[in-house]
Amino acid sequence: MKILGLDTSGLVAGVAVVENDILVGEFTTDYKKTHSQTLLPMLDGLREMIDLDLESLDAIAVASGPGSFTGLRIGSATAKGLGLALSKPLVEVPTLAGLAWNLWGTSHVVCPLMDARRNQVYTAAYAFQSAGEGMRMETLVPGQPMDIACICGRLNEIGRSVIFLGDGEPVYHSILEEQVQVPFLVAPAGCNRQRAASIAALGSLYFAEGKAVDAAMHQPEYFRKSQAEQNAGT
Amino acid sequence: MKILGLDTSGLVAGVAVVENDILVGEFTTDYKKTHSQTLLPMLDGLREMIDLDLESLDAIAVASGPGSFTGLRIGSATAKGLGLALSKPLVEVPTLAGLAWNLWGTSHVVCPLMDARRNQVYTAAYAFQSAGEGMRMETLVPGQPMDIACICGRLNEIGRSVIFLGDGEPVYHSILEEQVQVPFLVAPAGCNRQRAASIAALGSLYFAEGKAVDAAMHQPEYFRKSQAEQNAGT
Repeated sequence: MKILGLDTSGLVAGVAVVENDILVGEFTTDYKKTHSQTLLPMLDGLREMIDLDLESLDAIAVASGPGSFTGLRIGSATAKGLGLALSKPLVEVPTLAGLAWNLWGTSHVVCPLMDARRNQVYTAAYAFQSAGEGMRMETLVPGQPMDIACICGRLNEIGRSVIFLGDGEPVYHSILEEQVQVPFLVAPAGCNRQRAASIAALGSLYFAEGKAVDAAMHQPEYFRKSQAEQNAGT
Repeated sequence: MKILGLDTSGLVAGVAVVENDILVGEFTTDYKKTHSQTLLPMLDGLREMIDLDLESLDAIAVASGPGSFTGLRIGSATAKGLGLALSKPLVEVPTLAGLAWNLWGTSHVVCPLMDARRNQVYTAAYAFQSAGEGMRMETLVPGQPMDIACICGRLNEIGRSVIFLGDGEPVYHSILEEQVQVPFLVAPAGCNRQRAASIAALGSLYFAEGKAVDAAMHQPEYFRKSQAEQNAGT
């Protein structure tokens, strides 16, 4: 099974190809260029380097949200375009689950924090459980927008040590230090931001479970209305 | 601190740039092309995408071995060339430590297995320990060539659950199933092979500890003589 993964939900732009148990290729940037400048050239650079025939893909996995409005639209539009042109299904991988998958194998609770401004984060909490020779990721707190104080409270209730990651972690670090009462760690470079490899790897698992959608049907999950929509009261 | 990481020790070719706590960019392929065809074009593709000024690097971290003779030579030659041309120090990161760093945050013992043929692996065993808000990686079994049966025995003595990764894992999977008496897991796509991001991230830590070498002095660590040298009895 060969899956293309795309993640443009945050500052990171990433493309990756996973074939069975192997990451055949990954190209990631976390840089100030907009994803409309980077994503397709990166896909093309990767395609050339691994002689990727796009027709050979089984599906296209995309970080389906939450995330920045523009970022999610670029990722979704690219995935839909590829899916429609190639007649391939899409696999929607929640951005927060993709982030947490970076820490496969940990016994700590994993809490991704994506900055949603105004003291809010898009967040969730997961825990890995051994399952045969692999692991499955259980959801302790489902993905949602939440006040940073609120997720701190939930983690204190759970009462287990936590690893934080995501672009919300540095933004709210002092609040975490103040309010989190369980031991906590902060993930380092290489696993603390979005990875398309995780989207492709989780996408492979979802696809094997039949969780694919028609490219025409896919919509990103924004979690809340845009500021303009909120102002208009729609 | 900005560190370029290179890993060509196995089938994977990887380049990555880590700046402080952020992976600014990573380009990885695990494909049948030789590293002499891929490494420099990948570095150039990454450089262009993140507007990387090579002069801005603090050091160049390289997977220093063990690994394939040709692969290590290509990585070392590239790192030495860049280091000499740019007057930057090199940081030697043991390949096995780089592999294990992929599983940052796990509480299982991490055992990288690199196939060294003839029932041998290049292997080691590590365990992560919390250290403030980060983790440090302790060496339980130092990197060395070993019979696969021998590392199984060592892991049984340690008596803790283990995660295996690396290209030796699928090769010796049936022996692991037969001889490993502790619970074990197998790392999935995305973290089960070399990552230049891990070389750059570990390289940053080593560099901060003063572990840098002059580019002219660097030599890869092959762990054993080449077949030709063994045949010649040198």
